[in-house]
Amino acid sequence: MIDTLYGELSDGAIGVFDSGVGGLTCVKELIRLMPQEDIVYLGDTARVPYGTRSRDTIVRYAKQDIAFMEKHKVKLLLVACGTVSSVISSGNIFEGTGINCYSGVIIPACDAACEATRNKKIGVIATPATIRSGRYEFEIKRQCPDISVYSNPCPLLVPLAENGYTERGCAPAEFFVKEYLTPLKEQGIDTLIMGCTHYPLFEEVISDFMGEGVKLISSSGVTAEMTFEALKAQHALKPETHKGKVELYCTDSVQLFKENVSRFLGEAECEIAQCKL
Amino acid sequence: MIDTLYGELSDGAIGVFDSGVGGLTCVKELIRLMPQEDIVYLGDTARVPYGTRSRDTIVRYAKQDIAFMEKHKVKLLLVACGTVSSVISSGNIFEGTGINCYSGVIIPACDAACEATRNKKIGVIATPATIRSGRYEFEIKRQCPDISVYSNPCPLLVPLAENGYTERGCAPAEFFVKEYLTPLKEQGIDTLIMGCTHYPLFEEVISDFMGEGVKLISSSGVTAEMTFEALKAQHALKPETHKGKVELYCTDSVQLFKENVSRFLGEAECEIAQCKL
Repeated sequence: MIDTLYGELSDGAIGVFDSGVGGLTCVKELIRLMPQEDIVYLGDTARVPYGTRSRDTIVRYAKQDIAFMEKHKVKLLLVACGTVSSVISSGNIFEGTGINCYSGVIIPACDAACEATRNKKIGVIATPATIRSGRYEFEIKRQCPDISVYSNPCPLLVPLAENGYTERGCAPAEFFVKEYLTPLKEQGIDTLIMGCTHYPLFEEVISDFMGEGVKLISSSGVTAEMTFEALKAQHALKPETHKGKVELYCTDSVQLFKENVSRFLGEAECEIAQCKL
Repeated sequence: MIDTLYGELSDGAIGVFDSGVGGLTCVKELIRLMPQEDIVYLGDTARVPYGTRSRDTIVRYAKQDIAFMEKHKVKLLLVACGTVSSVISSGNIFEGTGINCYSGVIIPACDAACEATRNKKIGVIATPATIRSGRYEFEIKRQCPDISVYSNPCPLLVPLAENGYTERGCAPAEFFVKEYLTPLKEQGIDTLIMGCTHYPLFEEVISDFMGEGVKLISSSGVTAEMTFEALKAQHALKPETHKGKVELYCTDSVQLFKENVSRFLGEAECEIAQCKL
């Protein structure tokens, strides 16, 4: 599990990568919290989604993503992909890469969920690969052995999000939220980890279905907050006078990527280019 | 557009490839028509879907798929992927490959549709990349300039099919069939090309929605039939006493692939292995 944030920080950008556009929910939050920071984002849109693939394939793809970030000399790297964060051991994947300051989204989300739960019942939704890895459950149990964790894979939520079917009143969004969350609701969870960075787009539909008593934890949101706190504590934030530059890279065509960017990122100013891995 | 079937036939297997499991609807039909034939199938499950990606990326992936088939010395190659069939020019992609007998799914489907239509209004549903290519429309117009063609891309049908949401009574299948087919129904089409090899799994839902007056053309089904007729005409079928061997290769894990095979292929006997491209 990739989940540490340490090491000496250089003056580079914050690196963020994801299988596709989902990690932009994390970038959006980073920009909101730290508009002065430079950000380099990579979305592997030529091979998205990762979450329905095998561990070996995900490891192979992630190594290439990390090599790209290394070339950009990022000061820290956020693995804003729940799938990569959960199936990969940070020791193996970062060894010899020159990147020694990094975080996945698992520990920040588990920290927030353990703090939020009152009845000690936490639900987790994520991609099939993430759920198969058992990492969210492992980390929650490691922190608080008396918490019960209920998980369910949601293979259709990523394609729905990538195609814009996420809003309140959208029938397939409501169908799949009900399909995937009913077993968790029946267990009486009071906290739900949205363990894939695409899922914050379904926040309203999920919130309507689960009811007000259930606290939603966005893995990308809490990871951005944790990063902000860590940089602040280490006095490693750029001066507030600096205007952060946001560079987005995708592995498929820029045109197709652009159609999704505004949906995920809102109106933030950014440069978009294609890259090879 | 990859759509010829000529050249001298060797004694090898029939090669079939697709981005994922959709092309197995073609294999199923090949087995039904010619149980004596050997079949080598490749599903690029580590990079599925192709249909939402750019042309350049699809070309790169298709070249690797074809190189794999070349190594297996197939006697003819069916590109059972509507996306690859439509975005690639056969002259460029097969040049120098040693494969000189091949077909995509576009021309067989257009032939069948042009023959079936009475009111000269044909609908086409396919992946976004296929629809963007305009190949179905081009080929129909080339054959019959007075036919009107109405097309609509269906980005969600592939993920729904890969996850088993295809049956009559399945709410998201019915939602998306209605969403994607309403504009075509309103045009009064009497013939509909299911221009992606995943779509035959939705045949009942599509048929219910379109009504009895609309003839459905399965691109994979008619391509298998055309192949059968061509082999028969060239006396290139294996003897009926031969028991055909079916080898399936996937680029992601065999276990994940197996979960889908029976849904697409039924109970046919086959060997499954992973391969690298």
